[in-house]
Amino acid sequence: MLRTHTCGELRIADVNKEVTLCGWVQRIRDKGGMIWIDLRDRYGVTQLIFNEQGTSPEILEKIRKMGREFVIKSSGKVIERFSKNDKIPTGDIEIEVSQIEALNSSKVPPFIIEDETDGGDDLRMKYRYLDLRRSIVRKNLELRHKMMQETRRYLDGQQFIEVETPVLIKSTPEGARDFVVPSRMNKGEFYALPQSPQTFKQLLMVSGFDRYFQIVKCFRDEDLRADRQPEFTQIDCEMSFVEREDILQMFEGLIRHLFKSVKGIELETVDRMSYEDAMKYYGSDKPDTRFEMRFTELNDVAQGKGFNVFDSAELVVGIVAKGYAEYSRKQVDALTEFVKKPQIGAKGLVYVKYNADGSLKSSVDKFYSQDDLKTWADKMEAKPGDLMLVLSGEKNHTRNALNELRLKLGTDLGLRDKKAYKALWILDFPLLEWDEESQRYHAMHHPFTSASPEQLALLDSEPGKVKANAYDMVINGVEVGGGSIRIHDRGIQQKMFKALGFNEDEARKQFGFLMDAFEYGAPPHGGIAYGFDRLCSLFGGSESIRDYIAFPKNNSGRDVMIDSPSAISKGQLDELGLALKG
Amino acid sequence: MLRTHTCGELRIADVNKEVTLCGWVQRIRDKGGMIWIDLRDRYGVTQLIFNEQGTSPEILEKIRKMGREFVIKSSGKVIERFSKNDKIPTGDIEIEVSQIEALNSSKVPPFIIEDETDGGDDLRMKYRYLDLRRSIVRKNLELRHKMMQETRRYLDGQQFIEVETPVLIKSTPEGARDFVVPSRMNKGEFYALPQSPQTFKQLLMVSGFDRYFQIVKCFRDEDLRADRQPEFTQIDCEMSFVEREDILQMFEGLIRHLFKSVKGIELETVDRMSYEDAMKYYGSDKPDTRFEMRFTELNDVAQGKGFNVFDSAELVVGIVAKGYAEYSRKQVDALTEFVKKPQIGAKGLVYVKYNADGSLKSSVDKFYSQDDLKTWADKMEAKPGDLMLVLSGEKNHTRNALNELRLKLGTDLGLRDKKAYKALWILDFPLLEWDEESQRYHAMHHPFTSASPEQLALLDSEPGKVKANAYDMVINGVEVGGGSIRIHDRGIQQKMFKALGFNEDEARKQFGFLMDAFEYGAPPHGGIAYGFDRLCSLFGGSESIRDYIAFPKNNSGRDVMIDSPSAISKGQLDELGLALKG
Repeated sequence: MLRTHTCGELRIADVNKEVTLCGWVQRIRDKGGMIWIDLRDRYGVTQLIFNEQGTSPEILEKIRKMGREFVIKSSGKVIERFSKNDKIPTGDIEIEVSQIEALNSSKVPPFIIEDETDGGDDLRMKYRYLDLRRSIVRKNLELRHKMMQETRRYLDGQQFIEVETPVLIKSTPEGARDFVVPSRMNKGEFYALPQSPQTFKQLLMVSGFDRYFQIVKCFRDEDLRADRQPEFTQIDCEMSFVEREDILQMFEGLIRHLFKSVKGIELETVDRMSYEDAMKYYGSDKPDTRFEMRFTELNDVAQGKGFNVFDSAELVVGIVAKGYAEYSRKQVDALTEFVKKPQIGAKGLVYVKYNADGSLKSSVDKFYSQDDLKTWADKMEAKPGDLMLVLSGEKNHTRNALNELRLKLGTDLGLRDKKAYKALWILDFPLLEWDEESQRYHAMHHPFTSASPEQLALLDSEPGKVKANAYDMVINGVEVGGGSIRIHDRGIQQKMFKALGFNEDEARKQFGFLMDAFEYGAPPHGGIAYGFDRLCSLFGGSESIRDYIAFPKNNSGRDVMIDSPSAISKGQLDELGLALKG
Repeated sequence: MLRTHTCGELRIADVNKEVTLCGWVQRIRDKGGMIWIDLRDRYGVTQLIFNEQGTSPEILEKIRKMGREFVIKSSGKVIERFSKNDKIPTGDIEIEVSQIEALNSSKVPPFIIEDETDGGDDLRMKYRYLDLRRSIVRKNLELRHKMMQETRRYLDGQQFIEVETPVLIKSTPEGARDFVVPSRMNKGEFYALPQSPQTFKQLLMVSGFDRYFQIVKCFRDEDLRADRQPEFTQIDCEMSFVEREDILQMFEGLIRHLFKSVKGIELETVDRMSYEDAMKYYGSDKPDTRFEMRFTELNDVAQGKGFNVFDSAELVVGIVAKGYAEYSRKQVDALTEFVKKPQIGAKGLVYVKYNADGSLKSSVDKFYSQDDLKTWADKMEAKPGDLMLVLSGEKNHTRNALNELRLKLGTDLGLRDKKAYKALWILDFPLLEWDEESQRYHAMHHPFTSASPEQLALLDSEPGKVKANAYDMVINGVEVGGGSIRIHDRGIQQKMFKALGFNEDEARKQFGFLMDAFEYGAPPHGGIAYGFDRLCSLFGGSESIRDYIAFPKNNSGRDVMIDSPSAISKGQLDELGLALKG
C-alpha cells in the first residue's frame, strides 16, 4: 500500500509513529509561518502540519502549488496537537510532515465538496464522481452496503439460498412496460429485462429450493415520477410449505434484524391491520402510524341537518388535531387551501374548534347546533382544546384527501419523528380491482397471488369481493415490501387468468412454462419482495431513493454523467435487423 | 410452517416424537403388507412406513393413488428402523405414519429425478425446474450460494464496500459486442448492458470509495462457445493507493479464504510466473501447474543435423513423459494422431524412447545418433525409462500444439487430480497486441491498463514491447480472474487511446466522462475481476459453467424453458420507434 494508515485511524496512542498517509486535500491554511492541510479519505480527515522554519524550501514550494482535491501522499511523525479538535476522531493528533508528494493534481471542482455544497442537482449529477466524495453521500452508500450484508446474514442464517435468476428473460404484456433487448442471434426476437424475478422464484419453489432470496436489479420502463428509477433493487424472497403467518414472522424477523444491526434500534411489535381498516381509519393502504389521528366517519351524525354539501356526500369523515383549537383563522385557511390544491382536490374543509371553555365554534354553525357539534366531538373523541377537521364527498376521493391532510398535520405538528420507526403489516387486500377503462378486473398484486383460503369459492360468483392472501409491510407511511401466498394449483391459476380476462392462448403463450411446472408437484409457497432503494432511504432518513443509488438516472431516464442513452451505429442496428422509424 | 421438521434432520434421538414432514415422493415400495415412501426435500430423504394392518383403509387408498413427485404432507411418530441405512443421515429412523395428505399431484416426470438421470440435455433444459430437483444440480447452486456469501464475508472484512453500478449504461464499440436496450423516452437512442462495470468502478475510486466490490451480472453478445453465456457473473473489485503487490496479496487472501471456508482446503503458496515464461515453458498463458512436464526448447541441439523438418522450424520443443518409454507403437501413434487433429494442427510428432538400458530409440534415428539423442535427453532432464515427445514449426503455433499434448498426457497419466488445486499468478503481460487484420494495436486486457512503471517511456517508441502492469490468476489451467493497475493520469490515458488508434473525438465521445474525472484528483488504483461462474465450476469439479447457473441459455442464446427471446408486439415496437427489417 502507498500508505501505512488511513486518514481516519490515528489516535493519541500513535504519537511518535512514523506514518504515511494518502488522500485528498480538503483545505489548506497558509498562515505565513505555518501551513496546515486537512487530508481526507473515506475513513476520515487528518491534519498535516508544516512549520516554515523546519520545512525545506522544495517541500514548501510543492505545497504552495497544491490546491483543493489534489491527491497527496505524505509521510511524517504523529505528534500531539496543541489545540485539539474534539469534533473528529483524529482531532488529538496531527502529522509533522517530512515528505509530501502530489500523486495527482485537480482542477478546481465545479462545486464545493462538503456536506453543505453550492452545487445544484444537475451539476452534481453530471459530476456524480465528485458528488460521491461528499461524506454525506458516501455515508448513504455505506449504509446501503451494510443493509445488504445484514440482509444476507439474516437470510443465510435462516437457510435461504441466494440464487441469481436471469436478466435476459421474456416480455409479458401484463403489468408495467418492459425494457426489451433485441437478439442478434435470433433476429426479430427480443429478450425483456425482468420487472421482478416472480416466475423464476416460483419455479425455484417447484424445484424444491425451499427458501430462496436474491438482492436483485429489476427494471420498469415507466414515465418516471420523482421517486422512481428505471432500474431499481429488490430484496426478493420465496418460501415453500408456508402459510401467511410463517412469512409474516420470518420477515418481521428480517426487519427487526436490520433495525438492530444497522441502526441499533429494537423495533416495537409490528402491528397488523386489514386493508379495509387502513382505508377506513387512515384513507391509505400505507398509513403512517407513528401518530394516531384516526379518521372518524360522521355520516350518521352530520347528515340530514340541511347542509347540502354533507347530505349529498357519500362520505363525511374527520380527524382531530389534539390541542390545536387555538389555530388562527389564517392557519385554518391555509389548511383549506391545502386540501383544495388540484393534486388533492377537496372542495372545501369544515372545521370545528372545541374551545377550552367547552363551547364549539365551526365553519358550519348555520347548520349545526352546539349539541350537534358536541355529538361529533363525542364520536371523534375530541376534548376541549382540540380542533376537528372534516371533509366530505365521494368515498375514495375524500379518504385520499383526508389522508393528505392528516399527513400534513402530522408533519406540521411534529408528530412524524424521523428517528421513530413504526412498522405494520397491511393484510386482506382485495384480490382483484375493477378497471373502468378496460372494463375488466386487474390483479391488485399480480396474477399469481392466491385468494384467502376460505374465499376461493367466491372467485366465480363475486370476484370483486375475494380477499387476497397478500400482505404489505409499511414503515412510517412508506410501503417497503409486499407479497403473497401464491397459487400452486394449475386449475386455480387457470381460473385466475380467466378472471383477469386472459384467453387460454394468451395465458399459455406467456405463462405456459409456469402452468406446466404446476403439473409436476408444485408445493404450497409464498414470498415477499422489499424495495431495497426505498428501504435504504427510510433507514437513512431521506425521502429520495436517488440519494441511495450510486449512479442514478434523471427523470428522463438519462444518466447525464456518461450521457446515456445514446445513438448506436448503423452497423449495430443492421446486425440486430432493426431500423429507426421517422 | 406446514411441517415440524425437514426431511434431513431427524435422528435416533428423535425417536417417539410426533412430527410432520412435507416433501416430494422419491419412491414408493408396496410389498403387500408394508408400504414405504421415501420423502425428499432440499435437506434430505426420510422414510415413511405404513403397516397395512395398522393403517386405515382410507389412508391406504390415498397412498395407492400417489406417484413419484407428488407433494406430500405426512404426520406420525419417529421410530427406530429395523434395518438401518448408513448411507443417509436419517437412516436410523423412519416415520410410522398416522396421517398423510397429497398437497399436490404430479404427472410422470419426463425424466428420472435422480443423480443418474435418463434425461438428455435438451429435455432437462426445457424442464429445468425438474432438473434442479436433482440433488447433484441443487448442490452446485448451494455451492454457488456459499461461494457468494464467503466472498462477501472476506471482502466486507477487508473494508470493501459493495456498490451496485448501473445495468443500463452506454454502448462502446471497443471490445466485444454490446447488448443494447432501446429507450422509449429518448427515441432513437439506446442503453447498453455492461460487459463489465470497469469505468464505474474506476469512477468510484475517483470518488474516494477506496475499496469497492460487487458480485455482478455482465453481458456479452458473442457467438456462444460451449463454455460461454450471454449473461455471466463477475466478482468485481477495485482498490485505491495500491501497487501490484497489494492486489496480489489481497486476492490471494480471497482465494485462500474461499478454499478454506468452502472446501476446507489450505491452498499452497500461489506461485508467480511471467507471461513470457508461461508461454515458453507451458505454451499457454494459463498453464495447469498441478504437474510439471515443462517444455524444453531444442533448436540448438536438434537443428543442423540434416533433418529438414527441424532445420526449417522456428521452434523445436519437447516434453518428457516420465516413465513412459514402454509406450507401445500404437500408443505413440495415437498421440501423433492427436496432435495432427485439425484443431491442433501439428504436422507430426517426433518421439524418443530412453530405454531402461540407457539406449535411445527415436522416430528420427536416420538423422540423429545416439549421442545426439543423449544430448536432447540431458537438456530435457530425461532419465532412462522416459519418453520424449518433440514438436516443431512456427513458434506460437507449435507452443499451442505442445500445450494441448501436454494437457492430454497430464490427463491420460492421471496427473490432473480434480481434488488437487494449484493456483498461480501470471504477470508481465504485453500491454498491446498487434492485430494483422485491422493493422493496429489492441489492448491485451483493456484500454485502462497501465504499463509497468519502468516501461512507460517505451509506449511511444516501441509500443509492442511494453509490459502491462497486469495479472491473471490461473487455477488448474483455468483463468479464473484478471486485472491490472489502471492508468489514473489523463495524459497517459490519452496516449494509450492514441496507441490504440482512437482519434481524439472518438475517445472523447466514448470515455470523455472518465477523462474528465481524471482531471479532478484521481488516485492511483487497480483491481481485478473473477469469473464467478467459472470459479464455482472449478470449485465444484466440473468443466461446464452451465451446471452452476440456475437458468442457463443454450448455444443459440435461447432459454428453452421460457421460450425466450420471442417476438414482441407491433405496439411495443412503435412505442420504441423501431421497425424490423426484412
